[in-house]
Amino acid sequence: MRISTQEIQEKLYEILINYNFRKEKAQILAQIFTESSTDGIYSHGLDRFPRFIQNVKDGLVEVDADPEKFGSFGNVEQWNGNLGPGILNARHCMKRAMEIAEKAGIGCVALSNTNHWMRGGSYGWQAAEEGFIGICWTNTAPNMVAWGGKQPALGNNPFIIGIPRPEGHIVLDMAMSQFSFGKMQSYAMEGMKLPYPGGWDNKGVLTSDPKVILSNERALPIGYWKGSGLSFVLDLLAALLSKGDPTCRIGRRGDEYGLSQIFIALNIKWLDREYLDNIIEETIQNVHGSEPLKEGENIFYPGERTIITRIDNQRLGIPVHNETWRKILNL
Amino acid sequence: MRISTQEIQEKLYEILINYNFRKEKAQILAQIFTESSTDGIYSHGLDRFPRFIQNVKDGLVEVDADPEKFGSFGNVEQWNGNLGPGILNARHCMKRAMEIAEKAGIGCVALSNTNHWMRGGSYGWQAAEEGFIGICWTNTAPNMVAWGGKQPALGNNPFIIGIPRPEGHIVLDMAMSQFSFGKMQSYAMEGMKLPYPGGWDNKGVLTSDPKVILSNERALPIGYWKGSGLSFVLDLLAALLSKGDPTCRIGRRGDEYGLSQIFIALNIKWLDREYLDNIIEETIQNVHGSEPLKEGENIFYPGERTIITRIDNQRLGIPVHNETWRKILNL
Repeated sequence: MRISTQEIQEKLYEILINYNFRKEKAQILAQIFTESSTDGIYSHGLDRFPRFIQNVKDGLVEVDADPEKFGSFGNVEQWNGNLGPGILNARHCMKRAMEIAEKAGIGCVALSNTNHWMRGGSYGWQAAEEGFIGICWTNTAPNMVAWGGKQPALGNNPFIIGIPRPEGHIVLDMAMSQFSFGKMQSYAMEGMKLPYPGGWDNKGVLTSDPKVILSNERALPIGYWKGSGLSFVLDLLAALLSKGDPTCRIGRRGDEYGLSQIFIALNIKWLDREYLDNIIEETIQNVHGSEPLKEGENIFYPGERTIITRIDNQRLGIPVHNETWRKILNL
Repeated sequence: MRISTQEIQEKLYEILINYNFRKEKAQILAQIFTESSTDGIYSHGLDRFPRFIQNVKDGLVEVDADPEKFGSFGNVEQWNGNLGPGILNARHCMKRAMEIAEKAGIGCVALSNTNHWMRGGSYGWQAAEEGFIGICWTNTAPNMVAWGGKQPALGNNPFIIGIPRPEGHIVLDMAMSQFSFGKMQSYAMEGMKLPYPGGWDNKGVLTSDPKVILSNERALPIGYWKGSGLSFVLDLLAALLSKGDPTCRIGRRGDEYGLSQIFIALNIKWLDREYLDNIIEETIQNVHGSEPLKEGENIFYPGERTIITRIDNQRLGIPVHNETWRKILNL
């Protein structure tokens, strides 16, 4: 079924208020969860909301906590997330990075002790909406093998870059695993194989069977050794700069909390807008004009399909599984 | 054969002087080319030197050009490389980013109109040697397909992150293509297949045949659509911030020159060194302690094997193909 964005957002808001979130916080959380589903990232939108509420019930998410600055040097700041809602902490820190960049050209905020930020792309879109380039990443619990290893040792550490563009922002939102766990779940539910190998089976052979990877968590890094290395350094940077925990420490807990994140904003308002627009449009046209591998198919830039989905879902309502909606109504 | 690092560096210096490089410039260029080979990155060290000299002869590299600052806002600077030697321009800009970060915590330098920086890792090692985190990337001529496309439309845009560590720096140096062209040439020369698919054949089927990919330049992005998206945004950021050219414009020239690059330095000297060291060692131990997929094999962190190779080559001399050395002696 399809449910209007407004109805969903109102329902989430109502639930959040019942779980003791203050009005402004409930409002933003309901909005971001709804936006993620509107944009087609269902796994980190509505589908994830019941788990978020469960984390609140379990005391992993501190309903009323606010992030606090505890260190800074020049245009780099360190914030403690105090285990507050990951979405609110992340939004706060991207906003803070932009405030720094407004005057300094570039700003960097490192956040420790936070919770899952849900859809990483949200903060790339946030920066782009304000006219800034936003670069951010998070670490996670171990859910991906290090190259050459057998067991999950690295996080899939989503990495986001947002670039503002009047006709529709460019936003890259990619985890270091070849397939997100949400995507693998979708394939598994439909009894389908992945289009490319997504992890190792229990014998150490590459497999495209999502069920195997979902059960053993031996997800494959993008580009094999390359994504493994990138995940390793992103984790380190996040933990070092934020004085937070790296993936290996997070993995020793039963649950995924107390994450480390980085938010970098770059000011481009001082640059010649016409030059920027020309470069962006030429670069997009170059990719759009590429001869497709399969006749009739389109080639997209990062974020392009998100906008198409967004417009559809705003018009027609968000597609929601009956089971998901039932779960939400019961929260 | 193996030739001592000293003999190689002296020979390169001599050649560079003959090609009218000033002493200080010849010295640094000879050193960096030699270091790349010492570190095992032969494709961008000695093996590439004859092509560099050819570019000098062809007037693509301006022997005596220095980079010039033409814009800045806060802690972001724009430099014009004036088509000088890519190595010198890149080193200058990473140094400049560190000077900014020394006081401001973070510094960003965008470089336009430069030449191939050879081994990207050089600038990650450079930052780490000075105790800074260094993040940098370059765009390139089109040599990789955009996801869904047939012809090369994106660059493989190497991306580098260096993290200082007293016992040996951590340096990630990765291009966005699954295999570098240098690596594919090595496999092709030995008549071997790539260990994983590295590009598309002329029928649009994934292939592990390096010869096919070397000839059609349809290299596969790491993580398929993911590396394609990352390459796209890295190219845009480099061109936008430096007021330089994106890959699509570079591709319209007959040769690869006039590239755009970004250098970001992060100051970590103000952070608690003991905390940093603990986090780094724990993260390394976590990966080292991972059960290997193949019994008896080691799991490495980014840069670890480089140091092993460096020590070997410093002790035993650099392995050089007779043909390569002959070419160099004839320059």
